[in-house]
Amino acid sequence: MSAESAFIESLRRLAMDPAARRLRDDAAVLEVGGTRLVLTHDMLVEGVHFLPGDPAQDVAWKLVAVNLSDLAAKGARPVGVLLGFPLGDEAWDRAFLEGFGAALSAFAVALLGGDTVAGPRVLGLTAIGEAQGPAPSRSGAGAGDRLWVSGSIGDAGAGLRVLKGELRNAPALVESYRRPRPRLELGEALAPLVTAMMDVSDGLLIDAARMAEASGAAVRIDLEAVPLSEAYLAALGDGREARLAAATAGDDYELLFAAPPGRTQELLALADRLGIPLTPVGAFAPGSGLTLADRGAPLPLPPRLGWEHG
Amino acid sequence: MSAESAFIESLRRLAMDPAARRLRDDAAVLEVGGTRLVLTHDMLVEGVHFLPGDPAQDVAWKLVAVNLSDLAAKGARPVGVLLGFPLGDEAWDRAFLEGFGAALSAFAVALLGGDTVAGPRVLGLTAIGEAQGPAPSRSGAGAGDRLWVSGSIGDAGAGLRVLKGELRNAPALVESYRRPRPRLELGEALAPLVTAMMDVSDGLLIDAARMAEASGAAVRIDLEAVPLSEAYLAALGDGREARLAAATAGDDYELLFAAPPGRTQELLALADRLGIPLTPVGAFAPGSGLTLADRGAPLPLPPRLGWEHG
Repeated sequence: MSAESAFIESLRRLAMDPAARRLRDDAAVLEVGGTRLVLTHDMLVEGVHFLPGDPAQDVAWKLVAVNLSDLAAKGARPVGVLLGFPLGDEAWDRAFLEGFGAALSAFAVALLGGDTVAGPRVLGLTAIGEAQGPAPSRSGAGAGDRLWVSGSIGDAGAGLRVLKGELRNAPALVESYRRPRPRLELGEALAPLVTAMMDVSDGLLIDAARMAEASGAAVRIDLEAVPLSEAYLAALGDGREARLAAATAGDDYELLFAAPPGRTQELLALADRLGIPLTPVGAFAPGSGLTLADRGAPLPLPPRLGWEHG
Repeated sequence: MSAESAFIESLRRLAMDPAARRLRDDAAVLEVGGTRLVLTHDMLVEGVHFLPGDPAQDVAWKLVAVNLSDLAAKGARPVGVLLGFPLGDEAWDRAFLEGFGAALSAFAVALLGGDTVAGPRVLGLTAIGEAQGPAPSRSGAGAGDRLWVSGSIGDAGAGLRVLKGELRNAPALVESYRRPRPRLELGEALAPLVTAMMDVSDGLLIDAARMAEASGAAVRIDLEAVPLSEAYLAALGDGREARLAAATAGDDYELLFAAPPGRTQELLALADRLGIPLTPVGAFAPGSGLTLADRGAPLPLPPRLGWEHG
């Protein structure tokens, strides 16, 4: 076991409260006085999650978006955030606040408090949400359920490749990378219909494998079904390599969820009503592990399923 | 205006929700579905708030204690915490977890979630509490109220001087510095009796000045009334310099509160019941600013009232 796994195992032993969901979920779900609170804390570290040269406005947006995406996956409406911010370069900090304000305003979330310190750029955000419904976990998928994903997959990863100069400029892809939009309204609507839900942050394949593991089931992904955007297809085509790249890229912040086949019509009607594609991309079966298929034929898993660190 | 003040002013403009209390309080107070939640997020940065050589167990304890102290000042009972932790050196991280577990267990708080990342040692903790009563702010003190403080003042500051080799060893003082104990039970009991409350983290004088400023009142502190422990008196004596050092040292994590003179008997009875000294150390008056007196004679303010950064 790596040092990191050992640390997280030890943390789990400290997290015995049911609200912690054994730290295996994207957020804590806490019942307080008739209210179901959803709480999440995500950090972004300069040099790890973003580069010193990245626009500070986009770093701020992303800090808000990744946390709200965890709330979306629990069907929770955001109530507010607390910011942990190390003060440093004045211009950078000012640009950060500009993006931070824009994100709070875009998602109608209140800044409630936090802390400012002197120190290296390790940004922390705590988001608090309120779920009206059941707050789905990662672990409820059952054999026979279909696996679904919202929107399109791979755009943010392709956007990062544009920024690295590996692909020709495509503003829609760069926008997906820089300004992810958490699926808040969709998450709330999906929560009562699904058996398990999480957001796709590290890559479709690795996140689906995590849902299957948490649920004690096997999952198959049909590569040909993975929804790709027009911008993605224009930049990378529809070959198997392009599809595998999309399914392992991460940073999508789409919702990944499991639902019994009987929910299909309801889900498609919801997609129609909200104008957000919802696509079945696979299915759960008894057993364990992830398998991949392309037009019905089994496909070996790629060496890398996504990002190992969230 | 310094860059930091300008940044915080801009943050305040983003924090228009009443729950944020304009970021002028130690914690956010949020009403959710009939429940009064208190939320706080404090960070500790290596090289700023602690030194690389400090025992990791104590750093962990302090991270928990400083956050819970903010809950105590709002009369809130802790519900849980979220930890933001950068993984680094394996032995340090393991020692940290040991102290973290000890603190959670000492204060009966649940670890609910958080994030682990790779990065420099900037530790963040979010604490969530529930207040049954009114959740006092810093800003409610009125002219005529007495200023009170719990426990004794200056022990932690003297403990730090022991660790720096400036004072002879005194285990009780070092313990106060390394293992502060937030006044949770006391805070809950005080909340309905006080007009304003906060914890003493940066120094009695500077924190009292902040309470007065937030309340739109003047405050006088009677130096001879500041409660000193036996260990403090044994180490530093009872001279004016020793008293000024105690009143500006910080890290006390005692409760500082305002109450009308009519509450005096009730407060002394509470002190008796809980076995925690509660001492009147001054009074609020119309006007603004902090003044200092020693046995009735005015005393000039020392050049430094406490820590400027929380």
